[in-house]
Amino acid sequence: MLRLYDNKESRNGYKVVLLLNQLGTEFERVEVDIFKGESRTPEFLAKNPAGKIPALELEDGTVLAESGAILWYLAEGTAFLPGDPVGRAEVMRWICFEQNAHETSVAEARFILCHPELAQGRDGAILAEKQTRGNAALALMDQHLGTRDFFAAGRYTIADLALYGYTHVAADGGFDLSQYPAVGAWLDRVAAQPGYVPALEG
Amino acid sequence: MLRLYDNKESRNGYKVVLLLNQLGTEFERVEVDIFKGESRTPEFLAKNPAGKIPALELEDGTVLAESGAILWYLAEGTAFLPGDPVGRAEVMRWICFEQNAHETSVAEARFILCHPELAQGRDGAILAEKQTRGNAALALMDQHLGTRDFFAAGRYTIADLALYGYTHVAADGGFDLSQYPAVGAWLDRVAAQPGYVPALEG
Repeated sequence: MLRLYDNKESRNGYKVVLLLNQLGTEFERVEVDIFKGESRTPEFLAKNPAGKIPALELEDGTVLAESGAILWYLAEGTAFLPGDPVGRAEVMRWICFEQNAHETSVAEARFILCHPELAQGRDGAILAEKQTRGNAALALMDQHLGTRDFFAAGRYTIADLALYGYTHVAADGGFDLSQYPAVGAWLDRVAAQPGYVPALEG
Repeated sequence: MLRLYDNKESRNGYKVVLLLNQLGTEFERVEVDIFKGESRTPEFLAKNPAGKIPALELEDGTVLAESGAILWYLAEGTAFLPGDPVGRAEVMRWICFEQNAHETSVAEARFILCHPELAQGRDGAILAEKQTRGNAALALMDQHLGTRDFFAAGRYTIADLALYGYTHVAADGGFDLSQYPAVGAWLDRVAAQPGYVPALEG
């Protein structure tokens, strides 16, 4: 059986949990307390040297890392990832956008505000920069969704799933989602998808 | 013919230029002066609403955005992207790492230092944070390359190409590559690949 190393606060992990549920794939979920250093033990680093969750262990012991790569691996050959080259490039475009422009701003602002004890002086200029960038990312998403229901290939794909992870908790990072009505309507569409499950916390 | 919108200083654009050269694919390169606002004109935004290069225009007018997505699209079915699911997940893992942990630190530190006139107060705490993160990314790469020649699937792939883009100019961002000898040896291996071309500037 697939084994997912996860943390209940992480929305990177939740992306994988959501897809596995939507695929109807059985898996074992292992909670890793990243705040107590459990992703930095020699045992965990042997599985993922980056010391991060999510990590997906296959039945033969192979461990896959990075949420975007795990989503792509699991979605291949399913309705969540199209088969045509341009549709696939659109999905990958938004996964890259999420990793580059969105997760590093929206998710990191949330982390700083939810864990002031770990912010290490990042609550001033660094937080402000992340909020500026996060609002730019949300504005681009809102513009894109103004004329379509889902991000890529005309249907619900892992691009939506990747972006949903931290967008639906963006308020935790100080973002006002009411400024982005098309994003709000899209969040509702994602939550109405078959097999949808909420995140474990918050 | 493929048309690539590019900027000579961008190593995101260079990744695509390098792959097109290594594939032996003819293309037209269009220089976009991002410092004079040419990626923010109505004409360019109609092609890529994110206002960024690289953007690849296909013969039918479809425009692909995000360097990682363009690399994946071009490499599919070639030696630069393996066909087996685990090998592909490894390639995607490092492309996601590049977008999430590396480009946002190594490349952005370089931008701040190379363009002080555009740094807008980011040369203090924000630059320091990017350098801390960038060194962590380079250390993880050095560890990974300590026991292998290339990043994924046991051979030269678009994962190497994506990471080469900004790693080989990391000194511009204040990084000391001599601290990462396995990275240095890998840079030499990439530059020795058939079809290698240097970037247009620096």
